[in-house]
Amino acid sequence: MKIAILPGDGIGPEITAQAVKVLHALDERFEMESADVGGAGYAAHGHPLPPATLALAKAADAVLFGAVGDYRYDTLERALRPEQAILGLRKELGLFANLRPAILYPELAGASTLKPEVVSGLDILIIRELTGDIYFGKPRGVRTCPDGPFAGQREGFDTMRYAEGEIRRIAHVAFQAARKRGSRVTSVDKANVLETFQFWRDVVTEVHEDYQDVELEHMYVDNAAMQLVRAPKKFDVIVTGNMFGDILSDAAAMLTGSIGMLPSASLDANNKGLYEPSHGSAPDIAGKGIANPLATILSAAMMLRFSLGKVEQAERIDTAVKRVLAQGLRTPDIHEEGTTRVGTEEMGDAVVKALG
Amino acid sequence: MKIAILPGDGIGPEITAQAVKVLHALDERFEMESADVGGAGYAAHGHPLPPATLALAKAADAVLFGAVGDYRYDTLERALRPEQAILGLRKELGLFANLRPAILYPELAGASTLKPEVVSGLDILIIRELTGDIYFGKPRGVRTCPDGPFAGQREGFDTMRYAEGEIRRIAHVAFQAARKRGSRVTSVDKANVLETFQFWRDVVTEVHEDYQDVELEHMYVDNAAMQLVRAPKKFDVIVTGNMFGDILSDAAAMLTGSIGMLPSASLDANNKGLYEPSHGSAPDIAGKGIANPLATILSAAMMLRFSLGKVEQAERIDTAVKRVLAQGLRTPDIHEEGTTRVGTEEMGDAVVKALG
Ligand SMILES: CC(C)[C@H](C(=O)O)[C@@H](O)C(=O)O
Ligand SMILES: CC(C)[C@H](C(=O)O)[C@@H](O)C(=O)O
Repeated sequence: MKIAILPGDGIGPEITAQAVKVLHALDERFEMESADVGGAGYAAHGHPLPPATLALAKAADAVLFGAVGDYRYDTLERALRPEQAILGLRKELGLFANLRPAILYPELAGASTLKPEVVSGLDILIIRELTGDIYFGKPRGVRTCPDGPFAGQREGFDTMRYAEGEIRRIAHVAFQAARKRGSRVTSVDKANVLETFQFWRDVVTEVHEDYQDVELEHMYVDNAAMQLVRAPKKFDVIVTGNMFGDILSDAAAMLTGSIGMLPSASLDANNKGLYEPSHGSAPDIAGKGIANPLATILSAAMMLRFSLGKVEQAERIDTAVKRVLAQGLRTPDIHEEGTTRVGTEEMGDAVVKALG
Repeated sequence: MKIAILPGDGIGPEITAQAVKVLHALDERFEMESADVGGAGYAAHGHPLPPATLALAKAADAVLFGAVGDYRYDTLERALRPEQAILGLRKELGLFANLRPAILYPELAGASTLKPEVVSGLDILIIRELTGDIYFGKPRGVRTCPDGPFAGQREGFDTMRYAEGEIRRIAHVAFQAARKRGSRVTSVDKANVLETFQFWRDVVTEVHEDYQDVELEHMYVDNAAMQLVRAPKKFDVIVTGNMFGDILSDAAAMLTGSIGMLPSASLDANNKGLYEPSHGSAPDIAGKGIANPLATILSAAMMLRFSLGKVEQAERIDTAVKRVLAQGLRTPDIHEEGTTRVGTEEMGDAVVKALG
């Protein structure tokens, strides 16, 4: 089995290296090959998603991704900026289902800005559609405003759109995931304003007919943002579109106060996937050896589970991460009084040791 | 001066009645006239925004609005549902600037789900553009998908758009508001993905040239959602589009834990405005006499300040509300041990008394 390793920018290389180390320590052999992506792709090959990188990702059974983005690429034209690599990979690999668990480890409850009773034991799964919506819809651009009080001026515009099949397949992912958890799905939309999301609501309701054992509730996105702050533990699985999912999944991650712990998976129709930490490239701490590698290590575990069919190995990693937390080891982002501060490599080594 | 009173549905009539009582208790005479809106408009006249209601709102110097929406109208076709009244009033009256303060009264810090040190003293102002964006952009609808892998299927679609003049005028509102506060503006966009919001960022940056005394920062909407949870007090004024503003302003309101306290103003180019509480119609508690009228009373104060030029009277109301909180009076939504539970009318009466 072949894994494409795309370290990227900022802390990407450091944290990915720890996940690779953990993968090497398992009793399985994986073929791993690295390639440049993001700013590193642009610097070496003139494009954030160089053709060779895309080819490697396509040929591999799974992609382990670090993070992209760095100040020095901020002034490039949009088509060459690091984040275009992520958008390109999602689209080219057909990674339409983004799974982002927001879990609060009991040991880290203090890290949250929310009161412990509101978030302790938090375990929700946000499923974000990832290849449709206003992210990719055309037409889009800057044009002369054709009508209304501002006719004749310049205007920016984009197209939001969701086809029936796109909604159906992500709804199936959500209902199936819910069956393995709390059997409740909250579909988040803005059906009271948007045609796209009234249509979304109708199609999700239709798909639900095949899953009568799962409870379905519809919620407006503004209310969902409020309920995430008010009573996040009431959710089980949240399914939503690309744009709303971008906002809500980051808000949910931040509820835990430990975004350095949260993995993500982006899957295609055949469970091939791209795995990456939920956090960004944090260029301000890059190279200092203090970044938290656990989200990337847990992303590798998700990869073993979903794309490589190695559930036992995935569980070994998950358990090892729980062990190092129980041992009191903490990178600076999650450090508290009474725990032991460690660096990126030490944390990676500790997980390897804890594999047992 | 003429005020249109639109009580609406659910708790709308109860809370509006308290604000009217407070207005009557001032040493100013206002002409007030009521009309049906929302579900009440539909029930009485077959439309959520009956022509007579719209005419009254247009003729008045300001509109005091309760809330709309009730379960029994949920199954109506979209064009007849209560919330269409809000959208119609915004568009017809040209209310492009929505001002939503998120303030945490020191006495109510315990009501927040966030830790006191994270939110105590919170005082941010969210300025949401209210008549543009994907809320009103055309074309929109359900059609046959014209291209791509889902061609031939049904698809829902909407158009996001912002013209230069629309962005300019809301940016001016934000910079001018910031000058009266902390002189910092965070413009929230999604310039890394959306053409509309790259354009938004460019125009806001241009307008900023006239306000060199105000600090401007740009932030992606997903990051803004995270920072609101992580460190909300770092913001001063947030300015954003209609869709992102819908989500972020509700999230910010919920941070306070006391959304029953938060007023809002929606202004046109001449400071004519519609004033309403930030919360909804809460049909589950309607008619029980337990709804919190303070957000509506504070909305009336905003109306006196922004549209009617009665700053002193506005301050009297604001002070009276602080007094009743200091006296320990609380409606059930903000009640805590050691305070005195009161109903909607008692709270209104207490504010009248506290006007001094
Ligand atoms: C970098 C950006 C294009 C991306 C997105 O908006 O999807 C990021 O925010 C994410 O959530 O992965
Ligand atoms: C009711 C709805 C149309 C409205 C909106 O989305 O603007 C509401 O959520 C609001 O924020 O006032």
